[in-house]
Amino acid sequence: MSYSISIERTSALKQKPDFSQLGFGKYFTDHMFIVEYDDGEGWHDARIVPYQPISLDPAAKVFHYGQTVFEGMKAYKDAEGKVALFRPFKNLQRLNRSNDRLSIPAIDEGLALEALKQLVTIDESWIPTEEGTSLYIRPFVISTQAALGVSPSEKYLFMIIMSPVGAYYREGINPVSIYVEPQYVRAVPGGVGNAKTGGNYASGLKAQEEASDKGYSQVLWLDGVHRKYIEEVGSMNVFFKLADKVVTPALSGSILDGVTRDSVIQLLKYWNIEVEERAISIDELVEAYRNGTLEEAFGTGTAAVISPVGELNWQGERLILNGGQTGPLAAKLYGFVTGVQRGAVEDPFGWLLKL
Amino acid sequence: MSYSISIERTSALKQKPDFSQLGFGKYFTDHMFIVEYDDGEGWHDARIVPYQPISLDPAAKVFHYGQTVFEGMKAYKDAEGKVALFRPFKNLQRLNRSNDRLSIPAIDEGLALEALKQLVTIDESWIPTEEGTSLYIRPFVISTQAALGVSPSEKYLFMIIMSPVGAYYREGINPVSIYVEPQYVRAVPGGVGNAKTGGNYASGLKAQEEASDKGYSQVLWLDGVHRKYIEEVGSMNVFFKLADKVVTPALSGSILDGVTRDSVIQLLKYWNIEVEERAISIDELVEAYRNGTLEEAFGTGTAAVISPVGELNWQGERLILNGGQTGPLAAKLYGFVTGVQRGAVEDPFGWLLKL
Ligand SMILES: Cc1ncc(COP(=O)(O)O)c(C=O)c1O
Ligand SMILES: Cc1ncc(COP(=O)(O)O)c(C=O)c1O
Repeated sequence: MSYSISIERTSALKQKPDFSQLGFGKYFTDHMFIVEYDDGEGWHDARIVPYQPISLDPAAKVFHYGQTVFEGMKAYKDAEGKVALFRPFKNLQRLNRSNDRLSIPAIDEGLALEALKQLVTIDESWIPTEEGTSLYIRPFVISTQAALGVSPSEKYLFMIIMSPVGAYYREGINPVSIYVEPQYVRAVPGGVGNAKTGGNYASGLKAQEEASDKGYSQVLWLDGVHRKYIEEVGSMNVFFKLADKVVTPALSGSILDGVTRDSVIQLLKYWNIEVEERAISIDELVEAYRNGTLEEAFGTGTAAVISPVGELNWQGERLILNGGQTGPLAAKLYGFVTGVQRGAVEDPFGWLLKL
Repeated sequence: MSYSISIERTSALKQKPDFSQLGFGKYFTDHMFIVEYDDGEGWHDARIVPYQPISLDPAAKVFHYGQTVFEGMKAYKDAEGKVALFRPFKNLQRLNRSNDRLSIPAIDEGLALEALKQLVTIDESWIPTEEGTSLYIRPFVISTQAALGVSPSEKYLFMIIMSPVGAYYREGINPVSIYVEPQYVRAVPGGVGNAKTGGNYASGLKAQEEASDKGYSQVLWLDGVHRKYIEEVGSMNVFFKLADKVVTPALSGSILDGVTRDSVIQLLKYWNIEVEERAISIDELVEAYRNGTLEEAFGTGTAAVISPVGELNWQGERLILNGGQTGPLAAKLYGFVTGVQRGAVEDPFGWLLKL
């Protein structure tokens, strides 16, 4: 199948930022992809155009009823200058699972992949190559019908924008301190916690702010029903190394099915390290900490890849993990996954899609 | 205190729609209000301008992380052509409670009220006067900073748009059929269920669609923890008339503190009808139905005012209320509240703010 994507190139390339000072999601490349949806007509007018503002009616549903989904993925350049995407199919499948949950019409994954390839190729000079950097890719869908009835939109835009990024956390691969949230809840079974939709992030801002004020960089969410089972961290899934195995919360419906989570599980199995996906209570972790069997904790996500946890604060008790230092397992995982991404380590799982 | 709001009038008034065929939220008036926020500067540049599209960077946070809040209120014109707003202070206070929950800076309620008054006055000819019609007013805040880090925005727009509306439900004051939702969950304590933010509505779309497919016009949500206590209906709070009293779910944190709910409670007390705000399980309702003591149910909300419930479907059991007809209490409440709104009934509570 072939897809027709029209291309309008910018007449004035932007000045690139200092690639050693990128931060996360602050600068955007020269072009973007856009395709429109209208009820009856389907997705139409796929095009790559210069990065530019979009104009919407103030009654557009996205401004009122939060009917949005997004994805986050990355492109890398290897030492020979070859460009690769990391597991893009997983992201596009998840995009459509999110769409389904949010009553947004499915997007042809073949079209989206073709758009990704063409867009990354056109803006290839924006892919930074320094260690820890990459080109972050943000596909997203917004509902654009100008009508205030609460019902699924009859019009949408699916867009892809891209941003060269440095490390997500200022700490880099250094450990982060995490506040285990006792009061606020992110998601609950039956809700939209396993969809990548705006409302899940908006609802976490206040807890995040309050944790920051206490000196913590992220919040660890507990489940909304029992208020004791571990869910996930900010924009990451979370893993714990107990004495002889690694545990991570099962996909219960209220957490995101992370691509990095899946990659880490695959890798642990490949290394013959036992990994369990199951319910983990905060009490179990506190007990393991006191026994000395909670050896490491780390988050996994596209932005930071692997983010070691140096401290967990649970109701004022500070659990210091691996002496507050990056643990050996987190370091090994980080080295392997980012190595594959940069083309420096052999890719045994076929994770890279080379362009 | 006086507020400075600049005014730019449209040079071409729109053609008005047929006021007997308005529907809900489809047509917008000639002007809109807008004020901007920038970190460090606060809210600035308050202005009334011709209704027009807004232009945003595709990285604007509202498109990705759902940091939005909104309000819904109405203006009415009485028989002498005098214009009034219904309890606008309650909406503006709730706006700021929502803002606080969503980490959005507070809006000066005096400025917002002044904006409402001036905007309604300028577009006064858009206020329909036929029975059941009104001018729906939609204040809303969107986060506009172009940056992909998950954190509160450093820039916002607060806008007010207005739409002449007919009845929200095609059924009008006729009873609606409601599907008691067994699977999906809207909100949970610790979440954002009591804030008027987009994500709460996005997460309800799928349940709403599935209920529509079964022939029901709305979903009745149960609580997300026990999955048995009544929460609210779509965009309405809900009341039940049991033999000798009226009950409505207490404000537990996961439902909206409705202005119409508050007005109905005030009115019931004024009429010496006992009203209880408390937890109500679906089992209690089913039992009351079987006993013959569940006499009426109705929703309350700005859009429909009072919406009688003719049927509740709980796990396949169809509870037909008051023979599927509008009950006497719902009819009396509807008559009184809409009478006050239209200036046809004396306003004992000072609900109207006359312009
Ligand atoms: C809520 C949430 N959980 C987990 C993740 C990690 O998923 P992935 O590894 O696919 O990036 C993300 C972000 O991407 C997220 O937003
Ligand atoms: C979720 C929800 N519950 C209840 C209501 C009713 O509130 P009010 O009476 O203030 O309109 C609304 C709508 O306005 C709503 O969106």
